[in-house]
Amino acid sequence: MGAEGQGTDPGAMDYRSAGVDLERAERAKEGIRELVESTRDQWTLSGLGSFGGLYQLPDGVSEPVLVSSADGVGTKLKLAFLTGVHDTVGRDLVNHCVNDILVQGARPLFFLDYLATGELEEGVVEGVVRGIALACRENGCALLGGETAQMPDFYAPGEYDLAGFVVGIVPREQILDGSRVREGDLLVGLTSSGLHTNGYTLARRILLDRAGLGVGDQIPGTREPVGPALLRVHRSYLPALRDEIGGSAVRAMAHITGGGIPGNLPRVLPDGLGAVVDRESWRVPDLFEALARLGSVDREEMFRVFNMGVGMILVVDPAELEGLLVRLGDRGEAPWVMGEVVAGSGVSFR
Amino acid sequence: MGAEGQGTDPGAMDYRSAGVDLERAERAKEGIRELVESTRDQWTLSGLGSFGGLYQLPDGVSEPVLVSSADGVGTKLKLAFLTGVHDTVGRDLVNHCVNDILVQGARPLFFLDYLATGELEEGVVEGVVRGIALACRENGCALLGGETAQMPDFYAPGEYDLAGFVVGIVPREQILDGSRVREGDLLVGLTSSGLHTNGYTLARRILLDRAGLGVGDQIPGTREPVGPALLRVHRSYLPALRDEIGGSAVRAMAHITGGGIPGNLPRVLPDGLGAVVDRESWRVPDLFEALARLGSVDREEMFRVFNMGVGMILVVDPAELEGLLVRLGDRGEAPWVMGEVVAGSGVSFR
Repeated sequence: MGAEGQGTDPGAMDYRSAGVDLERAERAKEGIRELVESTRDQWTLSGLGSFGGLYQLPDGVSEPVLVSSADGVGTKLKLAFLTGVHDTVGRDLVNHCVNDILVQGARPLFFLDYLATGELEEGVVEGVVRGIALACRENGCALLGGETAQMPDFYAPGEYDLAGFVVGIVPREQILDGSRVREGDLLVGLTSSGLHTNGYTLARRILLDRAGLGVGDQIPGTREPVGPALLRVHRSYLPALRDEIGGSAVRAMAHITGGGIPGNLPRVLPDGLGAVVDRESWRVPDLFEALARLGSVDREEMFRVFNMGVGMILVVDPAELEGLLVRLGDRGEAPWVMGEVVAGSGVSFR
Repeated sequence: MGAEGQGTDPGAMDYRSAGVDLERAERAKEGIRELVESTRDQWTLSGLGSFGGLYQLPDGVSEPVLVSSADGVGTKLKLAFLTGVHDTVGRDLVNHCVNDILVQGARPLFFLDYLATGELEEGVVEGVVRGIALACRENGCALLGGETAQMPDFYAPGEYDLAGFVVGIVPREQILDGSRVREGDLLVGLTSSGLHTNGYTLARRILLDRAGLGVGDQIPGTREPVGPALLRVHRSYLPALRDEIGGSAVRAMAHITGGGIPGNLPRVLPDGLGAVVDRESWRVPDLFEALARLGSVDREEMFRVFNMGVGMILVVDPAELEGLLVRLGDRGEAPWVMGEVVAGSGVSFR
């Protein structure tokens, strides 16, 4: 034991000398108070420091169903550690969670985070929470609570893990559960902003280990250095899609996360239906092509691990396609038809 | 890179050789399917594998308010790693979360977990989720979802981190927020089952490092070996207290977690009121005394770090004390009056 306790006994142990600093935790809490307060809405009943966060159920939702999801950022966090940029991973986390409930028709009500670290470093917790709070405001949900855990012996110095949890709401009749999907429905893709939060273990091995690049080095075949390219924020599709919920054009949505298109699109298709995806219908972004080339990664493996430029797939009523494409275009999206729903199961590429 | 990819290129990289095994993840998911299903209730609308978990809002709650909390198990997990016992930490996690919303008057609806590990070990994930599912059933809440993250380079072999999120409900008029507390109210203690989930970094340093004990060695001054003593499950107070919610006897409750009595009791007292706690009113369990002695830990520090045998404190209307004590006794509790609410702030001991 290095540091000594506060007692008169020179061998006295205390929590701080054991590696847990409650005073620093208290200061960190003060540092995030304003950030948390900035996300409050009319339904938020509690403030920082209560045992549980209180959120009044909004009025006017008929047969309300709560939709909830838990997620992490994965080893994208390593890029935050390597670059010292800590205020984007929180946005990744919130947006990922929001997308996961959006695909079932829900809009987010509130969010909670779990941040675990070995030793609290001044500024790091605040940076992470700043990103979380910003994304909560962008998505219109309250940062209702969270836990910051000091766990010496668990995390290397300067490292942390981060998990998040969102609760949203949907009127029962507007739930998207795949039951409306029909053979012949069209698949409409929305672009991803980058790797989002999946495939980072493989991407790091390729770029940092095999290619030997540093975070400031340009990725061959792209216009970006490793750090900014890999840290690009996981998009929230809520602004593009919130007004389609309750409409008849979009019959299902799949968020393309771990497992890629083949791992996620079938999750929203009913038994007896599969999908054909035309891989020539879009240009895979340079970043993915660079990863494939530098890592000699098989094409099928690339599509299982990465989103390949497609962050969200909508299953669309063909009769409503044209109107939907116009509306999405008006919201700044560049959607395209990438395939269709067919009898069968799973995803086949053509 | 050790293992090679599936392509014909002998230098081809893939996700598995990078350390992420999607097939093993799929098997782990299958292994927990029944456990998750066992927690379903009439309001659970989704099954394993949907992007978000769906939970219909129960009928008959007037002005429903959602109460939510996030928490972890802290370095109590190290005891699970050292002993190979993985099916109790999930119960700690659920019970901790349930207690945190119970003190605001809420009963739990559903729970989600986040489990992050370096390499998925067969049986470990299932063991953890078995504990979570058991505690969910015991507390009457559904295990609505969760995330199991494979994060190579983050966690040492055989180690993992674990976080949980609970959502509960309370009719607005039954919220316990401290506003009913009056000067002269009595403090009633309920026993803890052990360290619960706090103070483990200090306890490990004392018992394992300074005293040099192994997990099978008896703790001097107690009748228990280190492993079982430190792994004892954090109690849920829901069975003892659920029927007091909405009643008039209990005006506030404080869950005694990190920060001990001085750190938690004031969280439920309104401005202008403090508490006097009589430390002679109960016998501190041997485990805590052993920690104090072996670590030469100052008495005040012991009370700031550990629960000292008190897991829950109720703030009680004096006129209703007698009836409450009888009811709690009937539910198997051994409650005692440990102090009172006074003008002032914070906690003073006598």
